[in-house]
Amino acid sequence: MSSTTGQVIRCRAAVAWEAGKPLVMEEVEVAPPQKMEVRIKILYTSLCHTDVYFWEAKGQNPVFPRILGHEAGGIVESVGEEVTDLAPGDHVLPVFTGECKQCRHCKSEESNMCDLLRINTDRGVMIHDQKSRFSINGKPIFHFLGTSTFSEYTVVHVGCVAKINPLAPLDKVCVLSCGFSTGFGATVNVAKPTKGSTVAVFGLGAVGLAAAEGARVSGASRIIGVDINSSRFEQAKKFGVTEFVNPKDHNKPVQEVIAEITDGGVDKSIECTGNINAMISAFECVHDGWGVAVLVGVPHKDSVFKTHPVNFLNEKTLKGTFFGNYKPCSDLPSVVEKYMNKELELEKFITHEVAFSEINKAFEYMLNGESLRCIIRMEE
Amino acid sequence: MSSTTGQVIRCRAAVAWEAGKPLVMEEVEVAPPQKMEVRIKILYTSLCHTDVYFWEAKGQNPVFPRILGHEAGGIVESVGEEVTDLAPGDHVLPVFTGECKQCRHCKSEESNMCDLLRINTDRGVMIHDQKSRFSINGKPIFHFLGTSTFSEYTVVHVGCVAKINPLAPLDKVCVLSCGFSTGFGATVNVAKPTKGSTVAVFGLGAVGLAAAEGARVSGASRIIGVDINSSRFEQAKKFGVTEFVNPKDHNKPVQEVIAEITDGGVDKSIECTGNINAMISAFECVHDGWGVAVLVGVPHKDSVFKTHPVNFLNEKTLKGTFFGNYKPCSDLPSVVEKYMNKELELEKFITHEVAFSEINKAFEYMLNGESLRCIIRMEE
Ligand SMILES: NC(=O)c1ccc[n+]([C@@H]2O[C@H](COP(=O)([O-])OP(=O)(O)OC[C@H]3O[C@@H](n4cnc5c(N)ncnc54)[C@H](O)[C@@H]3O)[C@@H](O)[C@H]2O)c1
Ligand SMILES: NC(=O)c1ccc[n+]([C@@H]2O[C@H](COP(=O)([O-])OP(=O)(O)OC[C@H]3O[C@@H](n4cnc5c(N)ncnc54)[C@H](O)[C@@H]3O)[C@@H](O)[C@H]2O)c1
Ligand SMILES: [Zn+2]
Ligand SMILES: [Zn+2]
Ligand SMILES: [Zn+2]
Ligand SMILES: [Zn+2]
Repeated sequence: MSSTTGQVIRCRAAVAWEAGKPLVMEEVEVAPPQKMEVRIKILYTSLCHTDVYFWEAKGQNPVFPRILGHEAGGIVESVGEEVTDLAPGDHVLPVFTGECKQCRHCKSEESNMCDLLRINTDRGVMIHDQKSRFSINGKPIFHFLGTSTFSEYTVVHVGCVAKINPLAPLDKVCVLSCGFSTGFGATVNVAKPTKGSTVAVFGLGAVGLAAAEGARVSGASRIIGVDINSSRFEQAKKFGVTEFVNPKDHNKPVQEVIAEITDGGVDKSIECTGNINAMISAFECVHDGWGVAVLVGVPHKDSVFKTHPVNFLNEKTLKGTFFGNYKPCSDLPSVVEKYMNKELELEKFITHEVAFSEINKAFEYMLNGESLRCIIRMEE
Repeated sequence: MSSTTGQVIRCRAAVAWEAGKPLVMEEVEVAPPQKMEVRIKILYTSLCHTDVYFWEAKGQNPVFPRILGHEAGGIVESVGEEVTDLAPGDHVLPVFTGECKQCRHCKSEESNMCDLLRINTDRGVMIHDQKSRFSINGKPIFHFLGTSTFSEYTVVHVGCVAKINPLAPLDKVCVLSCGFSTGFGATVNVAKPTKGSTVAVFGLGAVGLAAAEGARVSGASRIIGVDINSSRFEQAKKFGVTEFVNPKDHNKPVQEVIAEITDGGVDKSIECTGNINAMISAFECVHDGWGVAVLVGVPHKDSVFKTHPVNFLNEKTLKGTFFGNYKPCSDLPSVVEKYMNKELELEKFITHEVAFSEINKAFEYMLNGESLRCIIRMEE
């Protein structure tokens, strides 16, 4: 048992005091984990668009002051009451959604949308007592997505923690916490392309490139990347994308362009943009009879999906997925093993690395569109 | 070989001369079958809504004079060149869609939307030579759906003919040609409810009741029938429907009513109305995480399916089906076997029977909403 067990830990955290203002490195108090919670020493964290969205708080409820961060790898420091699945020293990935293992979703083979631990972007406190475990001079600082990994120590519900192979390099597998698994799982768990099939990926950000990686490992013969930003195409070649279509280069709908080059449509398509027009095109570009489209991008809250119902009667299927249909605790360890067996290439997603004290640089890289993933080292 | 082989056959047919006018019993000439065609002696035919829609020709292209009819059972009289799968004497069901066995759809395990023989409601001639096989005093009469079963003899492409067990009673299994298979297949081939699951069926006409029959044989624990016409409910009890909801009885959307009585939504729903609002409700009433909705009804050509894309991200799936995903030649014989093994109850779909000379009565029964299926006997 470590000397800090049961004690408040004082450590550094990057606090977002206000929407859109640079994070400030502060000394925070991290309370011990309560019932069904664990306290984790974070070693590496990376920046995802979702952090940026909630930091900007443009279309989102502003919840400040808050400790952002949800893609990370760390080691369990101590555990709260009733925690039996994890122990100090375990290597873990915290995840923004969870698994209570009791509800209908957790018991269903198909769903990962746990009733208790499903993502809740507005909640800034722990479920157990509706309180924060973070404070500065006694004043609470809010949590983010139940993870708040922009802190040297954080407290997370045990159902939102995946215990992984201790040999896995945390500075690489930390990206499996969110974006990579979302895109990769959308392809391999939901779209499920078979060997030789044709796949379209809409949006070539980190999530879309992970979806393309899923198509590559599934043996797709053609992977068509669609993006309105052609500067994404060069990089995407490394991710197995074989052809590119920029909707802006054509004066007909992109679904028609894709139907022409594929003799009627692709077998599978995965939408990773969040743009409603891309969602509609991603659906309509699949082949009748057997095509399946999978929505991944998070849409604007007022957007409406519209299509002619005959597209469904022509036996096109439309699905969506949340976190690539992975159950975080049950499934992520095996994704880590895939990386350990060299089936996955995570290195190509990691374009930048900074020390924790320079975390605001990671935001700049993402806002400039320079980075896919920037790893933030907690130890200087 | 019968004495009529290679000869023109003169026989009775019920001709639709004009939209909405009673059919007229005429003596017609039926030419011999050409390459890849068979001539069938029809013994029983039944009336489906689709016949009525094209007879009324309200939202449809008017193609007259025409011989309607597409649900039927008969015996092969003679076969044309290159026909190897069928021979005179075979008991068969003609089908409005077909299987060429060569195209990508026919080779796909998932699709039944054959490129060559897919339904074409505007075509009034045979594919081989773009000519009709029916005439009256040399003047051509158009075909309907490649079947035209309201005639004592008809000519059909071999890919639109299912060869069935000769012991099967044609006056019962003729309903498997269209409506029953469409609804039943939508459930068992596409929605695939598991034992104990909850199913909603929108629209309790023949197609919806066949979908309910599919849910019953799949062991669904609750089958919720939804119809705006409550008079359909009494009859539907015989088809295993356990609960009823009339959207008009509630002042909130029917999907919310269903979510309340099912703790979040049904596992599967099957839409058999053709009404766009019912399609949207059928999708939105399935449970997040695992729910699957299947569209069957044929929508108005200008209708638009609208929903919030978050419904997909919450892991609801939307599919559609054409002819219950059955491949007519390959799959219908086994559906007939299911009836022979007493797994299916077809008798309850057959509410009326008339002689061929009284075919217009069958139209009246359907237009009055009295009948589910009216069997028309060709021999008086
Ligand atoms: N469902 C989940 O569990 C989950 C998890 C993480 C991220 N996401 C979502 O996935 C989406 C992608 O995330 P990301 O980090 O890769 O984002 P990103 O911004 O890096 O990439 C999005 C790409 O889409 C392109 N794009 C935008 N509109 C387009 C259009 N109409 N047609 C074609 N391309 C278009 C952009 O040019 C960009 O290259 C976001 O909506 C994000 O919120 C979902
Ligand atoms: N896809 C195919 O292969 C195929 C084949 C045959 C028939 N169909 C279609 O299936 C549908 C049903 O056929 P049927 O012969 O059973 O028709 P039907 O007219 O006998 O039954 C339709 C039922 O839907 C109900 N209804 C209408 N609007 C509704 C709404 N908004 N909410 C709830 N209920 C509503 C009606 O009251 C009626 O009871 C039709 O659209 C038909 O064209 C499709
Ligand atoms: Zn749960
Ligand atoms: Zn993320
Ligand atoms: Zn075919
Ligand atoms: Zn029909």
